[in-house]
Amino acid sequence: MKVNGIPTRTIWPIEHGQAVGIIDQTRLPFEFVKEECVDWRQLQNAIATMKVRGAPLIGISGAWAMVLAMKEDPRDEAVHAVRAEMIATRPTAADLQWGVDQIVTAVMHVEPKERFRVAYKKAEEITQANVLANRAIGTHGAKLIAEIYAKKRAPVNILTHCNAGWLATVDYGTALSPVYIAFEQGIPLHVWVDETRPRNQGLLTAWELEGAGVPYTVIADNAGGHIMQHREVDAVIVGADRVTAVGDVANKIGTYLKALAAKDMEVPFYVAVPSSSFDWSIHDGKHSIEIENRSGDELRKVRGRDKDGRVTEVQLIDPQVNVENPAFDVTPARLVTAFITERGVCAPEFLTRLYPEASRRFVR
Amino acid sequence: MKVNGIPTRTIWPIEHGQAVGIIDQTRLPFEFVKEECVDWRQLQNAIATMKVRGAPLIGISGAWAMVLAMKEDPRDEAVHAVRAEMIATRPTAADLQWGVDQIVTAVMHVEPKERFRVAYKKAEEITQANVLANRAIGTHGAKLIAEIYAKKRAPVNILTHCNAGWLATVDYGTALSPVYIAFEQGIPLHVWVDETRPRNQGLLTAWELEGAGVPYTVIADNAGGHIMQHREVDAVIVGADRVTAVGDVANKIGTYLKALAAKDMEVPFYVAVPSSSFDWSIHDGKHSIEIENRSGDELRKVRGRDKDGRVTEVQLIDPQVNVENPAFDVTPARLVTAFITERGVCAPEFLTRLYPEASRRFVR
Repeated sequence: MKVNGIPTRTIWPIEHGQAVGIIDQTRLPFEFVKEECVDWRQLQNAIATMKVRGAPLIGISGAWAMVLAMKEDPRDEAVHAVRAEMIATRPTAADLQWGVDQIVTAVMHVEPKERFRVAYKKAEEITQANVLANRAIGTHGAKLIAEIYAKKRAPVNILTHCNAGWLATVDYGTALSPVYIAFEQGIPLHVWVDETRPRNQGLLTAWELEGAGVPYTVIADNAGGHIMQHREVDAVIVGADRVTAVGDVANKIGTYLKALAAKDMEVPFYVAVPSSSFDWSIHDGKHSIEIENRSGDELRKVRGRDKDGRVTEVQLIDPQVNVENPAFDVTPARLVTAFITERGVCAPEFLTRLYPEASRRFVR
Repeated sequence: MKVNGIPTRTIWPIEHGQAVGIIDQTRLPFEFVKEECVDWRQLQNAIATMKVRGAPLIGISGAWAMVLAMKEDPRDEAVHAVRAEMIATRPTAADLQWGVDQIVTAVMHVEPKERFRVAYKKAEEITQANVLANRAIGTHGAKLIAEIYAKKRAPVNILTHCNAGWLATVDYGTALSPVYIAFEQGIPLHVWVDETRPRNQGLLTAWELEGAGVPYTVIADNAGGHIMQHREVDAVIVGADRVTAVGDVANKIGTYLKALAAKDMEVPFYVAVPSSSFDWSIHDGKHSIEIENRSGDELRKVRGRDKDGRVTEVQLIDPQVNVENPAFDVTPARLVTAFITERGVCAPEFLTRLYPEASRRFVR
């Protein structure tokens, strides 16, 4: 997507993999700042502190971190040690392990001295594949939006939670990709953007949509149910951090509440994911997916502009106040209308038809 | 309740009704500041800007504003004009009209020159009655908490949304009154406190509970569903701004989402209300209750401490970003386990047994 007219991706190699460029997303929407990561620990830290975030981008960043690690020490022992550390960085997103293992598997077939080159090639490959997959998710999802428009003949209202836009992927996004493609196709639409406390990723979504010229309105996370009750939402589309073999969905905390409201108000609830977010090894999401608990400071502190326009951090909640901050929740498959993947649109009960390779691995 | 060891109410007459004292709740939890309102417009403004807030307290404040108005101009025309302006200040809470009309009805029976005295007496009366009603709500609700504890034999986890504590009433609170009474009785308990964006009234609840020594944890509004899924909530207790004759509940935006999660996870969902919050003239809450839309600035700006500890306001969302801010939502009666009122605990379908005077007024 474009930033100030310049086509921009969220992650890019610098000098053939000697470094990796990222956008420091913690400074958005206030400041657009790029950063250069010269070693894998720096990129790992960027994942941990959410400078890069969003399941698909975390996956691709994990792959690029492994490339940087090959530059440092490509021997077996080092590869396995870095792999373990990388995967532990953020436990909920399936994509992280997927991205890291794409590189590990590729390099293990070759001699250590070849590993940096092989890793670099593989990382380039999956980065490009991510863009194509997201574009395909957009094309499939845009058809759903077009169908709603064909019936309604008025702007289609989409509600989304968190940021599953191009910032959460390499480009296009997952949940927002159908929005961008439908908008390109001239379908009138409007997006309800959940603020998404505590990290306020809704403001990233607003920043993206503003940049693309798509009409949107930011609402408190609390407001989505009310808006659905009043028939102002035609579809909910969210991303996912991990999807089980039966279609349970781990996504940003609060997703489950929106899925319940969508069910109650008969609003279709779609989950847009690339194949890399599926974890075919588990089925019961509520008991099997590890939910990351993050620092209470994410709730206690917030960034904004002071009266002179300077970006500053304020403390909303005093340090001694007890706070809990689970980062994800699990939406059971029964609340999901369909998944929008690069292969097509599919209800949870038919996932194994869309992914026959998975049904062979998964025994109920 | 006590503030720094001193018994404190949220509203009190000064010099026999020449002025009315309030706590400026917009400055909590950072600063505890009292304010003196010398005329009705000042108190009306305090209601509009949420210096005083919470349905029961809005009702009592409305009554005291009418007392101040009698001091200024007690003639019929003036009374009716002030009444109309007062009621329009915050449209969703049933208590505001109730409180204002308690005074209007009382003064209309007497000559203008008697009206200030009569109004003052009536306001004192309903202020005291509010304290007793809330105390009774607490006693009834504490029995429910005791029953859970008798079964569970471990600390009882209550989740609450917004602030329906003593700050939202004259004293004790509605949703928190059962918590305070149960805590006084020595029942081990813990409260999950929803942050309650956009106004963060959860921080008022945290401040109250901290002051009373009740264990609590603040969570993002998004987290309640996840916590219920993991069986960490034994009961949800919220207040209400207006309850219809069939038991539909208007309360702070986001309540509906918590009620859905409670239903889905089979957690009892209680609404604690004084009789003044019932509106027997309507039944379908979703279509009949006016939902107040408040300024988008409530979402755009937030107060906190800067690095030097000074309370300051920052802009989270730029002024040009489109924002919507509905202040309440409606939870349908089918999601409410029971109401806790000063008369007792009662499922929605039996409300007219608890309030026979209402069933005579309400024809389905």
